[in-house]
Amino acid sequence: MTVGPAAAQSRAANVPVVAVVGVGLIGGSFAAALKAAGAAGRILGVGPRRATLDRAHSLGLIDEVVSLDHALGRADLIMLAAPVGATAELLTAMRSGLRPQTAVTDAGSTKADVVQAARQTLRDKVAQFVPGHPIAGAEHTGPDAAHAGLYQGRTVVLTPLAETDAAMVARVRRAWQMCGAHVRTMTAETHDQVLASVSHVPHLLASVYMHQVATAQDADCRLALAGSGFRDFTRIAAGSSEVWRDIFLANRQAVLDELQVVRRDLDRAEQTLREGDARGLQDFLERAAVARRFWDARQPDRS
Amino acid sequence: MTVGPAAAQSRAANVPVVAVVGVGLIGGSFAAALKAAGAAGRILGVGPRRATLDRAHSLGLIDEVVSLDHALGRADLIMLAAPVGATAELLTAMRSGLRPQTAVTDAGSTKADVVQAARQTLRDKVAQFVPGHPIAGAEHTGPDAAHAGLYQGRTVVLTPLAETDAAMVARVRRAWQMCGAHVRTMTAETHDQVLASVSHVPHLLASVYMHQVATAQDADCRLALAGSGFRDFTRIAAGSSEVWRDIFLANRQAVLDELQVVRRDLDRAEQTLREGDARGLQDFLERAAVARRFWDARQPDRS
Repeated sequence: MTVGPAAAQSRAANVPVVAVVGVGLIGGSFAAALKAAGAAGRILGVGPRRATLDRAHSLGLIDEVVSLDHALGRADLIMLAAPVGATAELLTAMRSGLRPQTAVTDAGSTKADVVQAARQTLRDKVAQFVPGHPIAGAEHTGPDAAHAGLYQGRTVVLTPLAETDAAMVARVRRAWQMCGAHVRTMTAETHDQVLASVSHVPHLLASVYMHQVATAQDADCRLALAGSGFRDFTRIAAGSSEVWRDIFLANRQAVLDELQVVRRDLDRAEQTLREGDARGLQDFLERAAVARRFWDARQPDRS
Repeated sequence: MTVGPAAAQSRAANVPVVAVVGVGLIGGSFAAALKAAGAAGRILGVGPRRATLDRAHSLGLIDEVVSLDHALGRADLIMLAAPVGATAELLTAMRSGLRPQTAVTDAGSTKADVVQAARQTLRDKVAQFVPGHPIAGAEHTGPDAAHAGLYQGRTVVLTPLAETDAAMVARVRRAWQMCGAHVRTMTAETHDQVLASVSHVPHLLASVYMHQVATAQDADCRLALAGSGFRDFTRIAAGSSEVWRDIFLANRQAVLDELQVVRRDLDRAEQTLREGDARGLQDFLERAAVARRFWDARQPDRS
């Protein structure tokens, strides 16, 4: 039996109508990737700024610019890719108009706070919400930075609640897979602990360090002698202070807990150095170097 | 008056004969840059491994492969670009054959230890030694990684001793300038304090952090969720454990001192987070972000 173009397209378009709230790097790239994969029949764009939406439309990321209410009436899948601070407000505005067959997901960097907000705002409709976090990003933001390949080979974490509808989880998982992502499922608490370790603590350390160098009396001399190691180590410190303030506050306890463990290891390394223990120092440096090289070798090609 | 090709070449070739001991990334790029600038009449290569020297020769980095004794008899400028652990031994081997008109410089990452070694080994010839440190490097090493543009727009620090011959300093400075570098002069102690801040402490923090993540019970899960921020923050931790062990031990006190100041700032940031002080947190993050962006905007184009 042969499959005609119409049937092929119908099979491929897993989700007839997708709405993306927030059409910047994250939402715009989700839209672009679904479109490139033929995984969405129609993509609606929603957001507070008309100019941004029009830009996303002219870039071909979305098919239509619509209101939130309009999107609620048509979408099978709604992606919340607005700043995390807006999530609770958005969910509140969505609750009454949310149809039972619509799945809602998000892309926030912390998940326990989003789960709590979803429970409080969506109440009996919370089973339709699939909390998510794509581990991807870039130095640039906005629709112009969005591209269909952003999630290729990257990991997306879903943290469904006990009561989340399994079909809704499957729909969101499939959409991310069509974007080229690997999907992992875990609890919101595990997600937040792991992200405290691999994302939030490094950001705090890089920011503290950058702040310390920049406020030193001889900062000009220091910064003049800073090379490529400094550049890489501090790059994340240039990120948005509003975004990171919210992440730190949302995940405060996990960050503080993780920081204590890093401090304990720092104490040990410092003691090794203080004692001039060449073998201990090299052993620790070598373990770190091997682990870093091993991690790097397993990463998808980012060129 | 017109200047003929021969006169122009003679003017450009500031140093008739340059010898480079260690023809890897640092030494090979020094040779390549001088050659590209027409700043050296003849470049001799010295090193322990014949295959490496032959490779440097076939790549056109050096004009001749010679012995150290041969180089001492001909060179006007000798660059020591071997691993820093070999510096004292090299200086010892060079002392008796070192002619009074020859300047010697090095490219080691720490300077107080090199100055001490030079005083002990060169003794009455120490005035010919100009300690140096090019703030440049790359992920790759060896002659194949060497290129004439490595030092373009980069900073090179010279730390002459009180007794260093001013003409020798001028010759080394001019050579680095011909490589496209900005040359700064300071004491070895200042250099080591500043580098502890902008290079050694970041390396220690990145290594401690990488080691902590990699040895966690759930390391696999953590490393699977590590993204581009983690990648940049930990990149330096992949460096050679032997090289960094030697740097840390050579600059131990400055690193320990600087680390205390970073820890003090970390205590403050942690306290701000513990208190949930949103304004204080954002203020600190914003200062760090602005400083980092400002630094980045002043860097030479590295593309």
